[in-house]
Amino acid sequence: MTAEAGEFQIIERFFTHEAFGAWKSQGVGDDCAIIDAGAARLAVTCDMMALGTHFLPDADPENVGYKALAVNLSDLAAAGATPRAFFLSIGLPRRDDGWLADFSRGLMGLAAETGCALLGGDTTRTPEVNGRRAPAVISITAMGDLPAGLGLTRAGARPGDDVWVSGTVGDAYAALKCRWGHWSVMPDALPDLCRRMDRPTPRLALGRALLGVASAAADVSDGLLADLGHILERSHVGAEIDWERIPVSTALKSLTMPRQHEAALAGGDDYELVFTAPAAAADRVLEAGLAAATPVTRIGRITERKGSSVVVRAHGLPIAVERTGFDHFSGAPDHA
Amino acid sequence: MTAEAGEFQIIERFFTHEAFGAWKSQGVGDDCAIIDAGAARLAVTCDMMALGTHFLPDADPENVGYKALAVNLSDLAAAGATPRAFFLSIGLPRRDDGWLADFSRGLMGLAAETGCALLGGDTTRTPEVNGRRAPAVISITAMGDLPAGLGLTRAGARPGDDVWVSGTVGDAYAALKCRWGHWSVMPDALPDLCRRMDRPTPRLALGRALLGVASAAADVSDGLLADLGHILERSHVGAEIDWERIPVSTALKSLTMPRQHEAALAGGDDYELVFTAPAAAADRVLEAGLAAATPVTRIGRITERKGSSVVVRAHGLPIAVERTGFDHFSGAPDHA
Repeated sequence: MTAEAGEFQIIERFFTHEAFGAWKSQGVGDDCAIIDAGAARLAVTCDMMALGTHFLPDADPENVGYKALAVNLSDLAAAGATPRAFFLSIGLPRRDDGWLADFSRGLMGLAAETGCALLGGDTTRTPEVNGRRAPAVISITAMGDLPAGLGLTRAGARPGDDVWVSGTVGDAYAALKCRWGHWSVMPDALPDLCRRMDRPTPRLALGRALLGVASAAADVSDGLLADLGHILERSHVGAEIDWERIPVSTALKSLTMPRQHEAALAGGDDYELVFTAPAAAADRVLEAGLAAATPVTRIGRITERKGSSVVVRAHGLPIAVERTGFDHFSGAPDHA
Repeated sequence: MTAEAGEFQIIERFFTHEAFGAWKSQGVGDDCAIIDAGAARLAVTCDMMALGTHFLPDADPENVGYKALAVNLSDLAAAGATPRAFFLSIGLPRRDDGWLADFSRGLMGLAAETGCALLGGDTTRTPEVNGRRAPAVISITAMGDLPAGLGLTRAGARPGDDVWVSGTVGDAYAALKCRWGHWSVMPDALPDLCRRMDRPTPRLALGRALLGVASAAADVSDGLLADLGHILERSHVGAEIDWERIPVSTALKSLTMPRQHEAALAGGDDYELVFTAPAAAADRVLEAGLAAATPVTRIGRITERKGSSVVVRAHGLPIAVERTGFDHFSGAPDHA
C-alpha cells in the first residue's frame, strides 16, 4: 500500500462532501474542528485507539487511561482551546473490573486536573475472533471552547514566519526503542524517557497563550517533520529548520546522531506543539512560553517553496531522515 | 454475570465523579448529555458499534453506515435536539475500499438528509488476533442544538402522565428472527420488516415537536419495556401499559401472541420514541404527531409505584414477558 492510501486519505476520499448544515467548521484537516455553534465557538476532536496498535498489548491500564485523554487534550491545545467536556466509548472483549478501575484512575485523574468533565459514554463488547478475544478499543471525543473569532489551525503560516517547538522532541520514541531493547540509554535516564511516552503533557496553557500570537499550530503526534509537514500542506508554504536548534533532552543526546535524527525528527508521540509566528512576534512567543511555564525554541523559518517536505540543515548542509511519521494504514512499522 | 453488572453499571461504577468544570450536563443516564456551553445549549451523544455485536458480521455496509448514524440521531431525537454535526472514528482490520465506499454512501446520505455535517474523524487499524482479523468498530459522536432552557430527558415523568409511543414496535426484532430462520411471516411482508431493522427512521421531527409538551422521553433501542424502564428509574415512578393499545404492524399481528409480546415489548432496535406527557396535554401530543407526520399512540399511564419495572395488562390482567432488553455485557443472547 502506498503512502497516498494512508489514514488521512481515507477520510478525504470517502467522507468529504459538499458543505451543508448550519454549523460551519474552520478546521477540516486540522487537529480539531473549530465550529461556530450558535453563539459559542467550539473546538472538537476525536481519536480512536486500539490496544496493540496505539498501546503495547500489555500497557499499564492507568497509563492507557491517562494517555487516551491526553492525546485528545493535545489536539485541543493545538487549537488554543480550553477543554470542557469529553465523551468516552470503550469496546472490550469482556468485562475486566481491575483493568477498568486502573484505566479510569488514569483517565479521570487527568480529566479533573484539566477541568474536562466526562459527560457521556458508551460501552460495548467487541466480538471474539475465532474464539480469541479482540483487543480493547477506546474512542474519545473531546470538546473545548474558544474566544469568539480566535483559534489556531494549521492553515495560517506565511513565508518569513518563524517555526517554533515546545519542550523537547524525540523522547517518547526513544523510550519505546529502549523498552523494546533496540536502543539503550543510561539506566537513570530511562524513567524520565518512559514518562514522556506513557504520560505526555498536553500543552494546554501554551496553546491558550499563543491565541492571537501564533499563525499556525499542530501537535507533535506523528513526528516533528510529519506534523510540521501538515502545517506546510495546509498553508501552501515550505520550511527550513536547523538541526542544531532542535531541543532534545540530555538522554537523547547520549544516542548516536542517526538515532537522534530518527527520534527527534521522525518519532512521534511527544505531544509538544510545533507552531509558526511572524518574526516580529518573537518576543510575544517567548512571553507566552513564560506565562505557560513551557520552554519554546525557534527552530527555523517558513519559506515560499510549496509542498509538505521540510528541509533540515545540520551545520548548514541538508540532511536526510529515514522515517517521516507514522500512518496506521500505510504499512509503516508499528513503532517497532 | 448478573444484570447489575451490565453496560450501564460500567459507566456508573467506574466513570462517575464529583462534578467539575465549566459545562454542566443535565442528562447523566440519558440518551444525550444536554450541555449549556456558554451561550449555546447542546445535546451530545456517542455510540460505539462493532460488526458481529451490533451488526451481523456480513451486514450490507451501506446499511451499516446508515444505521450507525441513525441510532445516534435517534438519541438526539429523544432529547428534542436538531442534529448539526457528527464525528466518526472507524477501526478497521485492513483497508477495504469497496466496503468504505458503500459504508460512506449509507452514512453520508442520511447525514445530508438530516443536515448533520461530518466535521471530523479518525481512522485506525485494529490489530490482528493470532493472525485473524478483528472486526470493524465504529464510534460516532453526534451533536445537536436546543432552544435555551428546553430539552427532553428521562427524568420528568410524573404520576398521572400518559405514556405514549410513536410508530409501531417489534418489527426490527421480528425481522431479525425471520432472517435467522427462527420465525416466519408472509413473504411479501418481509421486505418492510427488514427495512425497519436495517434502515430505522430517527424520529427527529417528532422529538422537536414534543419540546415543551412531553415530560420525559427515550428512544426504543433496548426494547419498549427496558427503555420505558429507564424513564421510570430516572423519574422515580412506575407505569402500567395496556397490551391492546400497543401499536404493532400487520406483519407482527400474523405471529403467535407470545412472539408478538416478545417482539413488541422486549425486542429493541426500533428507534421509535417512548415518552410521557401530562394528561391535559394529550391534544398537544396529537398535534405534535400530526405536525411531524408521525403516528403517536397512548399506551398507558405513569403511577406512583417506584421502580423500573412496568406492569403490562392484557384484557385487564397482568402478563409476563420473557426478555426485558438487550445488554451487551450482561450475557443476554446476541439477537439470536
